[in-house]
Amino acid sequence: MARPDGRQPDELRPVTLTRQWSVHPEGSVLVEFGQTRVLCTASVTEGVPRWRKGSGLGWVTAEYSMLPRATTTRSDRESVKGRVGGRTQEISRLIGRSLRACIDLKALGENSIVLDCDVLQADGGTRTASITGAYVALHDAVGWLAERKALAGKPASVMHRSVAAVSVGIVDGEPRLDLNYLEDVAAEVDMNIVCTGTSDFVEVQGTGEANVFGRDQLDALLDLGVLGCVELADAQRKALAE
Amino acid sequence: MARPDGRQPDELRPVTLTRQWSVHPEGSVLVEFGQTRVLCTASVTEGVPRWRKGSGLGWVTAEYSMLPRATTTRSDRESVKGRVGGRTQEISRLIGRSLRACIDLKALGENSIVLDCDVLQADGGTRTASITGAYVALHDAVGWLAERKALAGKPASVMHRSVAAVSVGIVDGEPRLDLNYLEDVAAEVDMNIVCTGTSDFVEVQGTGEANVFGRDQLDALLDLGVLGCVELADAQRKALAE
Amino acid sequence: MARPDGRQPDELRPVTLTRQWSVHPEGSVLVEFGQTRVLCTASVTEGVPRWRKGSGLGWVTAEYSMLPRATTTRSDRESVKGRVGGRTQEISRLIGRSLRACIDLKALGENSIVLDCDVLQADGGTRTASITGAYVALHDAVGWLAERKALAGKPASVMHRSVAAVSVGIVDGEPRLDLNYLEDVAAEVDMNIVCTGTSDFVEVQGTGEANVFGRDQLDALLDLGVLGCVELADAQRKALAE
Amino acid sequence: MARPDGRQPDELRPVTLTRQWSVHPEGSVLVEFGQTRVLCTASVTEGVPRWRKGSGLGWVTAEYSMLPRATTTRSDRESVKGRVGGRTQEISRLIGRSLRACIDLKALGENSIVLDCDVLQADGGTRTASITGAYVALHDAVGWLAERKALAGKPASVMHRSVAAVSVGIVDGEPRLDLNYLEDVAAEVDMNIVCTGTSDFVEVQGTGEANVFGRDQLDALLDLGVLGCVELADAQRKALAE
Amino acid sequence: MARPDGRQPDELRPVTLTRQWSVHPEGSVLVEFGQTRVLCTASVTEGVPRWRKGSGLGWVTAEYSMLPRATTTRSDRESVKGRVGGRTQEISRLIGRSLRACIDLKALGENSIVLDCDVLQADGGTRTASITGAYVALHDAVGWLAERKALAGKPASVMHRSVAAVSVGIVDGEPRLDLNYLEDVAAEVDMNIVCTGTSDFVEVQGTGEANVFGRDQLDALLDLGVLGCVELADAQRKALAE
Amino acid sequence: MARPDGRQPDELRPVTLTRQWSVHPEGSVLVEFGQTRVLCTASVTEGVPRWRKGSGLGWVTAEYSMLPRATTTRSDRESVKGRVGGRTQEISRLIGRSLRACIDLKALGENSIVLDCDVLQADGGTRTASITGAYVALHDAVGWLAERKALAGKPASVMHRSVAAVSVGIVDGEPRLDLNYLEDVAAEVDMNIVCTGTSDFVEVQGTGEANVFGRDQLDALLDLGVLGCVELADAQRKALAE
Repeated sequence: MARPDGRQPDELRPVTLTRQWSVHPEGSVLVEFGQTRVLCTASVTEGVPRWRKGSGLGWVTAEYSMLPRATTTRSDRESVKGRVGGRTQEISRLIGRSLRACIDLKALGENSIVLDCDVLQADGGTRTASITGAYVALHDAVGWLAERKALAGKPASVMHRSVAAVSVGIVDGEPRLDLNYLEDVAAEVDMNIVCTGTSDFVEVQGTGEANVFGRDQLDALLDLGVLGCVELADAQRKALAE
Repeated sequence: MARPDGRQPDELRPVTLTRQWSVHPEGSVLVEFGQTRVLCTASVTEGVPRWRKGSGLGWVTAEYSMLPRATTTRSDRESVKGRVGGRTQEISRLIGRSLRACIDLKALGENSIVLDCDVLQADGGTRTASITGAYVALHDAVGWLAERKALAGKPASVMHRSVAAVSVGIVDGEPRLDLNYLEDVAAEVDMNIVCTGTSDFVEVQGTGEANVFGRDQLDALLDLGVLGCVELADAQRKALAE
Repeated sequence: MARPDGRQPDELRPVTLTRQWSVHPEGSVLVEFGQTRVLCTASVTEGVPRWRKGSGLGWVTAEYSMLPRATTTRSDRESVKGRVGGRTQEISRLIGRSLRACIDLKALGENSIVLDCDVLQADGGTRTASITGAYVALHDAVGWLAERKALAGKPASVMHRSVAAVSVGIVDGEPRLDLNYLEDVAAEVDMNIVCTGTSDFVEVQGTGEANVFGRDQLDALLDLGVLGCVELADAQRKALAE
Repeated sequence: MARPDGRQPDELRPVTLTRQWSVHPEGSVLVEFGQTRVLCTASVTEGVPRWRKGSGLGWVTAEYSMLPRATTTRSDRESVKGRVGGRTQEISRLIGRSLRACIDLKALGENSIVLDCDVLQADGGTRTASITGAYVALHDAVGWLAERKALAGKPASVMHRSVAAVSVGIVDGEPRLDLNYLEDVAAEVDMNIVCTGTSDFVEVQGTGEANVFGRDQLDALLDLGVLGCVELADAQRKALAE
Repeated sequence: MARPDGRQPDELRPVTLTRQWSVHPEGSVLVEFGQTRVLCTASVTEGVPRWRKGSGLGWVTAEYSMLPRATTTRSDRESVKGRVGGRTQEISRLIGRSLRACIDLKALGENSIVLDCDVLQADGGTRTASITGAYVALHDAVGWLAERKALAGKPASVMHRSVAAVSVGIVDGEPRLDLNYLEDVAAEVDMNIVCTGTSDFVEVQGTGEANVFGRDQLDALLDLGVLGCVELADAQRKALAE
Repeated sequence: MARPDGRQPDELRPVTLTRQWSVHPEGSVLVEFGQTRVLCTASVTEGVPRWRKGSGLGWVTAEYSMLPRATTTRSDRESVKGRVGGRTQEISRLIGRSLRACIDLKALGENSIVLDCDVLQADGGTRTASITGAYVALHDAVGWLAERKALAGKPASVMHRSVAAVSVGIVDGEPRLDLNYLEDVAAEVDMNIVCTGTSDFVEVQGTGEANVFGRDQLDALLDLGVLGCVELADAQRKALAE
């Protein structure tokens, strides 16, 4: 049973990371996983929220959102509905936790960075593309602070790990890497893996959408996810080297 | 390094499942994991939401909440704040997905069941206690429908699996089962495992709170979680047999 | 015409006041008027709201809420609806006023106490049970402050009165004490009486639900209400003596 | 101790009821109790809310609000705050209940009437002035329906009672009728009495603001309130006769 | 084609400006343009919002609202809907900008003035009547500050211009001044003109409701609007002279 | 006094209109006015809102929004704040009115089209760029309906006019076309002109931000705006011809 776009089961979609896509933010990356397209911006402000003042620690947080027509049919705006939905909040929290895992908040010093991940076009994997792109935007924002000598620690020590994420799932009984929308909808098991550049786990979330899953299936998905994250870490390194 | 309450690393806290704690709901269970105490009720209504009418399928959904002083310090009510927070929504969605995994919505027929999990007292593991208790409340509500001949399928086929959940984590470098609040706060890695009575996974969520984690640590936590869920499935069976 | 549960017109339902039902709050009481069951907790915080700082006066406020399935049919959560309803606010304000009538805010000193009354099971009289239980929880919270020498005045002077409340009503033309849900729905006139332990009135609220009422009926209801409050004050004294 | 405006203890402020103050509503009355000035409008719509359709019964509801600068200092608008406060809801509910007590909803037929009471200027007694004025506006709206032969019963049977309301209170130890703002603030006990034109009670709400009160004080206040309502019923009759 | 109320195309409706309509506000004006009736109040508070402190500049802002039955059919309250609608916000912003154009915020000093424009009865032109009335209320509030020596500059320099507003439109192909509701609904082009007493423009907003419009039509409407504003400035002067 | 980017006073910034920027919407255009970059999508749904059913008329509406970091400093999301701000609503309404002026809703038939204008990067003129881009997206959506034979009238008759918009203003005393952000902030008078391809006005909005303006200045701005709109209409024609 071939994949809808002809990929191998362990093959990522084409990944692009376009730095400085916007002129205003301290870091801005347009990340594309195939047709999924997310604008990740990192906004720096001096100081930290009131409850953190004087701690010597910085603060990193994230907000995820989708344009109303990023998807095949239009969704109502959350601003118009007057409340942020459960799915949006869950993904925003996941992105924030994942990025905080790769930054030393003490070395960052009392600076705040907000990562905005706005999905311009969706074709599956928007949360994992967001994490992968936000890492690069965050790296640029830390570089911006370094240039201004505004970090508490040595620049190299601030971003002590890289972090990337990918979705994996079981479709038609087959473990597959980086599901697109069609596969995501058809998946029996769906998992998001967040890994560092050295293959350690930051977060693992697996759900039996239409079925339960055994330990062997879980193991296969974890293998595939780590593989994908390593490849993404490589793409991040290349983008940052340009 | 002993656990704060003297348990073995692979030992659950005392678990009690008190059925029919309330007089009004079709199913109601007071579940206790040590000092964590959650009231789980199952409310049946005939019919399904408009978008599901005529599908022949039932609907199960869940809502989680904490009393303001379930915790060591008082939290503001979400009704007063005017919005349901991200954590609450995330947990409500997890409970709903987990319980839907153990029920055949076709055999349920066009009936709706809302599972309310209200934390009366919190000491870690409130979401996993909620899932474990809600399973028993849901079972009673299905029994109530069976007595009234209101199910579409055979009663036995409606609840085709049992489901239970437990938290596991790495504290002081040691994998431990069923963390209480003190351990939860201190955990380097924190994981929630939702399993069926036959040790299949329904949901796996692991987070490196203060650290990342390797595959071996992940494996140890999965082993521990499955073990705990098997024991909880046993407690559920006993409660339902009374 | 006998009462649904066989009581005399001037007979209360069985009343229980279980202190220290929860481990975290400074005061916590599970109050039961028959099948009506309310968890009343008192949460102490040092200091007072900004607008009261430097006044030397403390602050006592209350919040009432019902679990969604405390009633015979499920109600939507106010947190989900995004607003606190009129009935809830009205009762919260009544409880707050009633409890402030029995405490000397100057002797309390600049401490704040929030009384949370969460109805776990409803069978009529939830607001009067809340007031009666909250008094005991407040008394325990003041005791907690006394132990820590955190009161501005002498402990005995802080709670200078006791306060209790009961519903009365005219059902089938007969004045009755402490209506349960069935009677409450059928009542022609419905009244809530809040009294001190020495039979003084704190608050009187009477409504001709399905009818108007004459002065003689009003007088009979007031007599009955005072009688009930005296009996409840006795139960409070016994609970506090344990 | 004289009253601030020189009145006798049992003397109302000058009362005016100006009918047809606005051109659009089916009933509209500007009611003045001294400097308190409330615009009461009655808006008729054919039909009733969905949950009442086919019952043969009409529906009457009320909404109370204050202009931001009706008071001595400006209050924020509830529309801007995004929620209707507890006090506003409590008063809206009281007005609605009071007016429903004087109308036969069966004779009204399946028509809906909304009573809007907007306080243009406040000097104490805004809720009692609202009830008193809304009765006249409601009467005019029922007359409007009668002219169009849109009532289910005979016009005379629709408004089978008149209803009026007044505040009473104990100030400087003296029971007084119709408190203005200065007296309201200084009152030890504060009570709102809603009566029919034949001196029956519709609603009684008494609160010991700064003190508790004995049965004799309560009796004195009830006497005074009935007296005031009789006088207001007379003013209503005269206004309707014009 | 005569106008519904028999006016000439360039004729205003009768305009009245009643100062001191309310007792509490520092400035209060009931403005009437024919049957359109708006209560404009100006509320002074010492100091400015936090973001403006220490700037030496004052602050003037405006809020517009309509009573629910100001119109021919009743509208729901924005407080009940929980949000301020687009039209309301747009008009509030227009009133605020227009009034800030006629006041020297430096000469005002660090004082804040809120202009509340509440439409008691609507018959077209409510926003232009609001601006015209609010100018007079603002003038009175500045006078109140002058009496208390609370202005930073000379009283005369604070209100360095007068401002008034009027609607114009093309109805049945004819340019007309000060449209009432019937004309407003029928207008092909609708324009609001805000002018100073010396015929300078403050704001111009023209919309082709049912059609587009040419430069010659625009010119005719501008001429008519300036004419109307000059007449209104005269009415303002007379009102302030009383 | 040269313009910040060296343009002539009557010179537009480089304009690009990229059709089919997104894969999902029926019409999607990335419009750029210099560094201002807006994604305009047109979403078609069969049918119209309930209040319009059976009218034979279609419906076109618009929603405008800015990404949080489209600007030089980050703004909070309106979804997080829980309400859509006044400026956003005002612009959404303007875009909707402008686009409805160029479409024959009868020829459109009972179809609904939502125009979403999301500002990805802001440098002045975001509302006028939105209108200009949304016209092209709307044209493509109508073409999409034409291909499916889903229009009520002849395709050519549906879009009977073109519409474009541009900002003009007086900066340093000089009337200028198409202000960028720096000029917008410095402008004494600021005006938005919406015109058809045949130089008729659809909407004119002029504001004296820091000053009032005379009729001669208004005339100069109108001349400049018409000129700009003619040029933009040409760019739209070219984009649609590709």
